[in-house]
Amino acid sequence: MFSNIELEGLMRLLAFVLFSFAVCYADEGMWTFDNLPVKQLQDKYGFVPSKEWLDHVRLSSVRFNGSGSGSFVSADGLVLTNHHVASAQLERMSTAQHDYLKSGFYAATRDQEMKSVDQEVDVLESMEDVTNQVRQAIKPGLNDKQALEARQAAIARIEKDSLAKTSLRSEVVPLYSGAEFWLYRYKRYTDIRLVFAPEQQAAFFGGDPDNFTYPRYDLDLAIFRIYEDGKPLHTENYLRWNSAGVRDGELVFVSGNPASTERNLTVSQLESLRDYVEPEQLKFVGAVLDALHGYAAQGSEQARETAALSLRYENTFKVRKGELAGLKDPQIMGKKKAEETALRDAIKRDAQLERQYNGAWAAIAAAEQKRRPRNKELQYRTVSPTFAQIAVQIVRYVEEVKKPDSQRLPGYHDAQLQSLRFRLLSPAPVYLPMERSLLAAELDLAQGELGGSDPFVKAALNGASPAEAAAAALNGTKLADPAERKALLEGGEAAVNSSKDPLIGFARRVEPVLRETTEWERNEVQSVESRAGEEIGLARFAVYGKSIYPDATFTLRLSYGTVKGYPMNGTIAPYKTTFYGLFDRSASFDNQPPFDLTPSYERGRADLNLSTPFNFVSTADIIGGNSGSPVINRNGELVGLIFDGNIESLVSAFVYDDSSMRAVAVHPGGMMEAMRKLYHADALARELEGGSAR
Amino acid sequence: MFSNIELEGLMRLLAFVLFSFAVCYADEGMWTFDNLPVKQLQDKYGFVPSKEWLDHVRLSSVRFNGSGSGSFVSADGLVLTNHHVASAQLERMSTAQHDYLKSGFYAATRDQEMKSVDQEVDVLESMEDVTNQVRQAIKPGLNDKQALEARQAAIARIEKDSLAKTSLRSEVVPLYSGAEFWLYRYKRYTDIRLVFAPEQQAAFFGGDPDNFTYPRYDLDLAIFRIYEDGKPLHTENYLRWNSAGVRDGELVFVSGNPASTERNLTVSQLESLRDYVEPEQLKFVGAVLDALHGYAAQGSEQARETAALSLRYENTFKVRKGELAGLKDPQIMGKKKAEETALRDAIKRDAQLERQYNGAWAAIAAAEQKRRPRNKELQYRTVSPTFAQIAVQIVRYVEEVKKPDSQRLPGYHDAQLQSLRFRLLSPAPVYLPMERSLLAAELDLAQGELGGSDPFVKAALNGASPAEAAAAALNGTKLADPAERKALLEGGEAAVNSSKDPLIGFARRVEPVLRETTEWERNEVQSVESRAGEEIGLARFAVYGKSIYPDATFTLRLSYGTVKGYPMNGTIAPYKTTFYGLFDRSASFDNQPPFDLTPSYERGRADLNLSTPFNFVSTADIIGGNSGSPVINRNGELVGLIFDGNIESLVSAFVYDDSSMRAVAVHPGGMMEAMRKLYHADALARELEGGSAR
Repeated sequence: MFSNIELEGLMRLLAFVLFSFAVCYADEGMWTFDNLPVKQLQDKYGFVPSKEWLDHVRLSSVRFNGSGSGSFVSADGLVLTNHHVASAQLERMSTAQHDYLKSGFYAATRDQEMKSVDQEVDVLESMEDVTNQVRQAIKPGLNDKQALEARQAAIARIEKDSLAKTSLRSEVVPLYSGAEFWLYRYKRYTDIRLVFAPEQQAAFFGGDPDNFTYPRYDLDLAIFRIYEDGKPLHTENYLRWNSAGVRDGELVFVSGNPASTERNLTVSQLESLRDYVEPEQLKFVGAVLDALHGYAAQGSEQARETAALSLRYENTFKVRKGELAGLKDPQIMGKKKAEETALRDAIKRDAQLERQYNGAWAAIAAAEQKRRPRNKELQYRTVSPTFAQIAVQIVRYVEEVKKPDSQRLPGYHDAQLQSLRFRLLSPAPVYLPMERSLLAAELDLAQGELGGSDPFVKAALNGASPAEAAAAALNGTKLADPAERKALLEGGEAAVNSSKDPLIGFARRVEPVLRETTEWERNEVQSVESRAGEEIGLARFAVYGKSIYPDATFTLRLSYGTVKGYPMNGTIAPYKTTFYGLFDRSASFDNQPPFDLTPSYERGRADLNLSTPFNFVSTADIIGGNSGSPVINRNGELVGLIFDGNIESLVSAFVYDDSSMRAVAVHPGGMMEAMRKLYHADALARELEGGSAR
Repeated sequence: MFSNIELEGLMRLLAFVLFSFAVCYADEGMWTFDNLPVKQLQDKYGFVPSKEWLDHVRLSSVRFNGSGSGSFVSADGLVLTNHHVASAQLERMSTAQHDYLKSGFYAATRDQEMKSVDQEVDVLESMEDVTNQVRQAIKPGLNDKQALEARQAAIARIEKDSLAKTSLRSEVVPLYSGAEFWLYRYKRYTDIRLVFAPEQQAAFFGGDPDNFTYPRYDLDLAIFRIYEDGKPLHTENYLRWNSAGVRDGELVFVSGNPASTERNLTVSQLESLRDYVEPEQLKFVGAVLDALHGYAAQGSEQARETAALSLRYENTFKVRKGELAGLKDPQIMGKKKAEETALRDAIKRDAQLERQYNGAWAAIAAAEQKRRPRNKELQYRTVSPTFAQIAVQIVRYVEEVKKPDSQRLPGYHDAQLQSLRFRLLSPAPVYLPMERSLLAAELDLAQGELGGSDPFVKAALNGASPAEAAAAALNGTKLADPAERKALLEGGEAAVNSSKDPLIGFARRVEPVLRETTEWERNEVQSVESRAGEEIGLARFAVYGKSIYPDATFTLRLSYGTVKGYPMNGTIAPYKTTFYGLFDRSASFDNQPPFDLTPSYERGRADLNLSTPFNFVSTADIIGGNSGSPVINRNGELVGLIFDGNIESLVSAFVYDDSSMRAVAVHPGGMMEAMRKLYHADALARELEGGSAR
């Protein structure tokens, strides 16, 4: 990003000239809780969160592993998140007879609350700077590959020690491109029970067309209750629900776990993304989507099985398309070049900085050149359908756990095993015909892109066609039973090597090629880029200090911004929408999907106060992973539920601009109106509004 | 434009390859009633209007002089048009006590119908090709200036003869860049009485932000009744009102008077527009707007006086901005260059065509070069406030009418005098303080842009400041009284020259400079460009035949297209909107202007069927001047009322693209719902729906 300090200086100068001492900052950044932009907040809003405010918000925030964010909203463990964060669990709880994605769910009493199949929820208990410990492990004179291994070994050790000492989930997080390392410890919950979810069609009204756009009319919420030892968790750390919600122009905060941004990539890395990485990704995601749609078209049960997955792939497809368009926009790339030039010019003004850091950009550019010829292999040598992937992970698990912790592949360190086993042994339903379709499509694509003599393609197809190979791998597998998987994990390498299960056989064939590909990238590209990236991160510190925020890492961050509309489509978008708009959009499309009303809307229309605020936007800087994040006012109250960004924000992985990019949230007034009038979830509504618990 | 024939060939080929014999034409063109794209209509829609259909539609269509289009919608002379076409009359009928723009108007009985101040309405009675007559007047060997004069003299003669013979308003219209000339004869009506208009805020809900955008929620209609000899006009030619309106995907026609397109300009002309003409226009319009807003801010009566005018200037400003952005878009200019290259390449393949026409582009480019240094003079030497302009026209009138018809300035020929006098003697109210503000602003701008020694600036300021000069010209003028103006017109040059009226004094000083500037442009630029433009028009005929449509000329045209939504803002826009959407947009902006509800909406909300269709879009190719045009189905019924284009269509002056450009119309169901439920205009509603006349 363009230096905050330089921007700040420029802005202040401008402000001085134009507005006499009024200051004007962009509402940018996903800040760690230990390093907020205090001066910006004070100058622009006259409000800086206190330590108590921050601790309360942090401990009220949760991470849904693998899917998004959420927050505690009652003293008895109610957690609010998005429907689309919950949708994988809803799909797994459903059967051909009970489709909770389609029909929604409400537990009127606690005993009806329904346990998630395999959801973990984390609360960030503490954060500790371990930069020195990590850095000391990297002795002088190591080459890039050795340095990366030493770093990973140090991280594994710190995580393992912390886990042993505290029993808390422990993750070392590289921040500021690796210029800092922090140990984050999480309290983990695994008994997550569903309390309420509307129909997916109400949550995702407008479907793929309206996804990532605004104005919106989506009831994208789900409410769980966290249990511990079989009882609802009691907590003092929850956000008070404020149904009045936000006012136009109000300061708000978003506390959540943005998954990934790439605002600090070098221009050479961005050019690789633009020229070959993202185009191939888009092709891959498009092919998977085609396979999903083809499978869904076979019948209503097939459509049910793919619903949650299709939604995620459609989402990814739209994001990638938007990102690619952004990368191809000369203005955006020009801005990134200007940022890079500004940093490099600053470094060149100091001989020592220049000596230490100036080589980093060339090193990264060279690594990118090296990656280029193998890009297709990195993209298409993959096994992404859940179940086949689990088989590969089992094969890899038994091989890795034999090794000393520090020498294992990432993801297989001691501190990570609990979560990994939780996933590998998940009792989630397995749809073998769907898996077969997806695997066949991926193998077909790999064959087309890499050719029949590619080692991965040869190992995967084993002389057959893609469809035959997928059938051979999945027909007759017993791995659908978690007990079979458990037996393999516990039987170790011997059990895996002697297994006659066809899916394990498939996994054994492809795993060595996948491993070689991954290790090549790690040794030849990532090791170079992580060391050079660290250098650039340190250079940025040297020039700008800690006035900057780190790229997103699916860890807890605080964003802030103003509730406000923006210029759109030749006119202006309002800061909020109402239920009137939902009925307009539906009627405007003659109630045709994806703009059809659910039965709840049809039945409840006359009862709804149609002018109730429904969705709203703010300038808070968010990205995927923030889904389900609470929007919080100065008083620390819940005034919204993040669920999307607008179409202008699709490039925000690379660059943020608060003039047009907006975070889209559900308004608590709209959620309350729907819970009461459409779903008659009165007990839940009372609990949320702070009445007595049920 | 890119050749229709070539396009057609390409499309057919594509269609053949891709869809096996299905054909695919763009819904493009504003066609004269004598030359429809019969083949396109037949192939794409299987429907070609019959001669009876065309005659009926033509005679049911009207032109509101100076402002737009409309149509007969009852046997007793009811005419439907836009509120914004009627707004100048509404403003002129209003007083400080009765503001019909603000409050709306409904005549429950015929005796309450209110006469317009100075509105003319024309019906196109006949069309006759007079190309040969015009062409024969241009003897070989004339230079460009002589040729232009000869052409204008021939046109004036034809118009005068026609008027004498038929008493019908007679206009010779150059079509296809002057490759053809047609004599259009109009039946003219001047007793135009207002029957119904909603409040301007209902007609123009969303104001300047929503102008030229979609989705929209505007009740942009007004209904007049045409009287002749003091009685309602009885006519067989009117469009039957169909409240069911349009269906998604339906073929519709638009019959109206598009004012001006420049789709046949050369690239050198477009570059002039892009590089200096439109930027200066934008500056000029912006300055007038600032002056209007400044005046309006003085009080509510001042705001009332400027309301209609501000709206028109805001509209122009948004159009110019959109056009300029379009001209700067390399894709659009690239398309225009490709069109030009295709035509020139086709000409070069025929030695005779090349000899005749190939020089035209260079001639135009040279004329544009000549215009460039005087562009600012052409822009800023102007007197645009209505009343000061009338004074200039009076000074010019008495000078011109002395001359033989053929030697007069355009606008002062015999056949044009009736209309001119109608305007010069209009009893419309004159707001002298507003005129003073506008004139001062324009003189200030001229002084800034042209410098104090410019002859126009010197003549206009007469040694004073812009504000003083404007005050000196307008304080004490008696011209607000139409009788004073009439005395001057009838007293001729002697009366004008001896007048002591300060505004006439001002006009006498500036008129010679304005005349010189106009004549210079006419002789040095227009004469060259009209002859070369004609050559290009003839070249186009030679290459493409009459499969092309002429640029718009504020004469009657038929456009056609499909009712359908389009990709917008990352999602899709629906083909229609509903009243739900109005209430959403208002509530979304907390009912703040320009999104505030009128009292009629507040009172009538509970009675409205909110899912009633309100506005809708189609691919019909329209532009300014089409305002008020009827949308007509195959049965010749009224199924909509054009009032705007979407933001994507702002560049349609230069290029049309039916993938995203849309004509925006009011739905007859929405108009009927509003007339009945909000305005209780039941007698009018009955008459429109074909019940007994009142």
